[in-house]
Amino acid sequence: MTLDPGRNLRIDAARLWDTLMETARFGGTPKGGICRLAASEEDRQVRGWFREACGALGLSVTVDGVGNMFARREGRRPGLPPILIGSHLDTQPTGGKFDGVLGVLAALEAMRTLVAAGYETNAPVEIVNWTDEEGSRFSPAMMGSGVFAGVFTPEEALGTKDREGVTLGAALDGIGYRGQAAVGGRALSGYLELHIEQGPILEREEREIGVVQGVQAMRWYDARFTGLDAHTGATPMAGRRNALIGAARFALAVDAIANEHAPDAVATVGTLDVRPNSRNVVPGEALATVDARHPDDATLDAMEAEIEAAARAIAKELSLALDFARIWLQPAVRFDPVLIGCVREAAKANGFSARDITSGAGHDAAYVARLAPSTMVFVPCAGGVSHNEAESIRFEDAARGGQVLLDALLAFDAGL
Amino acid sequence: MTLDPGRNLRIDAARLWDTLMETARFGGTPKGGICRLAASEEDRQVRGWFREACGALGLSVTVDGVGNMFARREGRRPGLPPILIGSHLDTQPTGGKFDGVLGVLAALEAMRTLVAAGYETNAPVEIVNWTDEEGSRFSPAMMGSGVFAGVFTPEEALGTKDREGVTLGAALDGIGYRGQAAVGGRALSGYLELHIEQGPILEREEREIGVVQGVQAMRWYDARFTGLDAHTGATPMAGRRNALIGAARFALAVDAIANEHAPDAVATVGTLDVRPNSRNVVPGEALATVDARHPDDATLDAMEAEIEAAARAIAKELSLALDFARIWLQPAVRFDPVLIGCVREAAKANGFSARDITSGAGHDAAYVARLAPSTMVFVPCAGGVSHNEAESIRFEDAARGGQVLLDALLAFDAGL
Repeated sequence: MTLDPGRNLRIDAARLWDTLMETARFGGTPKGGICRLAASEEDRQVRGWFREACGALGLSVTVDGVGNMFARREGRRPGLPPILIGSHLDTQPTGGKFDGVLGVLAALEAMRTLVAAGYETNAPVEIVNWTDEEGSRFSPAMMGSGVFAGVFTPEEALGTKDREGVTLGAALDGIGYRGQAAVGGRALSGYLELHIEQGPILEREEREIGVVQGVQAMRWYDARFTGLDAHTGATPMAGRRNALIGAARFALAVDAIANEHAPDAVATVGTLDVRPNSRNVVPGEALATVDARHPDDATLDAMEAEIEAAARAIAKELSLALDFARIWLQPAVRFDPVLIGCVREAAKANGFSARDITSGAGHDAAYVARLAPSTMVFVPCAGGVSHNEAESIRFEDAARGGQVLLDALLAFDAGL
Repeated sequence: MTLDPGRNLRIDAARLWDTLMETARFGGTPKGGICRLAASEEDRQVRGWFREACGALGLSVTVDGVGNMFARREGRRPGLPPILIGSHLDTQPTGGKFDGVLGVLAALEAMRTLVAAGYETNAPVEIVNWTDEEGSRFSPAMMGSGVFAGVFTPEEALGTKDREGVTLGAALDGIGYRGQAAVGGRALSGYLELHIEQGPILEREEREIGVVQGVQAMRWYDARFTGLDAHTGATPMAGRRNALIGAARFALAVDAIANEHAPDAVATVGTLDVRPNSRNVVPGEALATVDARHPDDATLDAMEAEIEAAARAIAKELSLALDFARIWLQPAVRFDPVLIGCVREAAKANGFSARDITSGAGHDAAYVARLAPSTMVFVPCAGGVSHNEAESIRFEDAARGGQVLLDALLAFDAGL
């Protein structure tokens, strides 16, 4: 049994799918998505549903000081720290039904399977629902897991305000989910998170499971080009100091730099704010933001140098002032080899086609990996589309992901 | 006298400058500019000042149905239609003290000089203050002169709404300047407008007077590129459909096309609206607006074809959808040779350095030219800066412009 602990345990894929569809009504949108911002009334509703489902399984539910929820089932070796499985139940304002939610509900399904079978794990197992992974209402993202990992203090997180000036602390009080438990500061045996890929790679290559190796390094930059507003009609081309031309050339340079570091590099100008942004004024100011990522910190160092050099060269050539700054960075995260091996074996044992993959998006697992062995399981999503009401996965994707989560959990637990 | 009618008449340059500074308090801003939107309370104040100043000269002031103001002094030959001189007293929200205002107040100064000298013109002379030249509050620009010239109906103009939903008609009623007189529909002998250049050419070439030949042809386009929103981290570079990259390449293409038709062509992407304009989303949509101008309609035809072809080629190459449309055009305007000659001779007789110039900006004179012989006089402004609180001219520029306006008026009148 310990060599192939999950051989006989199968999740109930239909039950998993039903919970996905059932909870999608909390914040459900006419277009089939979910709007369930952190600490909102809709978040309260889904948290209540989750708490009740866990209680029905006999799990003890704890809420910590920033609203992270843990539903615990004891193991048979009392000294072992728990293994966490889960993700987040909050969504983007125009989010889909699966981003985060799949990870929590597949963890619930795994737990239901264990309870129904009477299977005893070595370590305690806890389902976790992290607060405010999306960062849409309260920024930055991954706030609950960030506090858990010591990246932010509870006070910093609770004092964060939404656009109406409501703090996260007040919002959690309002829905009754500012708990008594200390945030973090306890040992974990490991952390496993199932998630949709949010990219097109698995679908494009027709792979069923992504064996996640880590989370790529990410950096954000602001590049503000300043020239001179001028009348479009009365100002000859020669002598213009057009900030939009600078920003346009910079956007193309950023794209080219990422392509030069293919295939793993990505870099994007996602935001371009032009001033005065008037049809008949040569733009005197343009702010471009850059999001650059690579699995390897050293390569991202090189990309950063190239991006900054491009900005400076363009500004100089066009007689523009340049304000260039790196405003955020997250180093590359490498997941735990033992847990990665458990996921790979679980996929193989089930006959699912798999590929190693690096997460392009940030996830709670990236923070938890600072504390404990962690990894993730990816399943494909249609067209790679996410953060969109049209986000969709197939029934089979949920089934495969849930089964791999359970099997990897049990294999890891058996090795403790 | 008729051969050199203005030889002995000199405007009072100090008096002209004083009126510029005195009226600048109506809507004056801390930074030394003016915010005097059409049909606003500040517009009411300057209109009142203007009406009073004209009344003190014995002129009869008429207000037409869209608020255009005409202050008339009769001539000695009753059958002749009037010569109009003037411009507009409204400003941009962060406008300067001279755009439009100089033309009206120099016309007032010319009239004061005629009255003081007892000089009788052949034709009646009317100072005009056109309503809503700027188009900032009520769009499009040059509305009062547009109705006067039959380009818009009075009903269209009066029904135009500002951002708060107030119609121009209601706003004019509110300040007491919806007049009784019919708009347009009457003969004019000619129209002369003094204006700041709003471009850098005269200053750069150290010329004191611009002898305006016409207004260049102008066209506006919208180019909307549509791709697919995608996660910046999870979406490989290959296969992206990044609308911002399309718009950036388009902005550079528009710039290049104008440079290929140097030195008279100008073309500008002034507005770029990116969606969702989020740091970590590959932009799925980008709307670029183009303002393209050339003194010659045929060259602008060629530029238009090149601009549209560039947009289509870029969209095709990047797998973007394209929605391209010309949304506005104004044909090239050629001013009246006789009036142009009067301006050129007036500059020469005064010993002012002059150059022929085509207006890059639109002006009320472009519409009035559809009805009657028209032209303009330009004076330099510092750095070519306009539509900006920092807009400035020298005392001598106002003095020279006012003198040329008076002399050209008298020369033209003498030839009637």
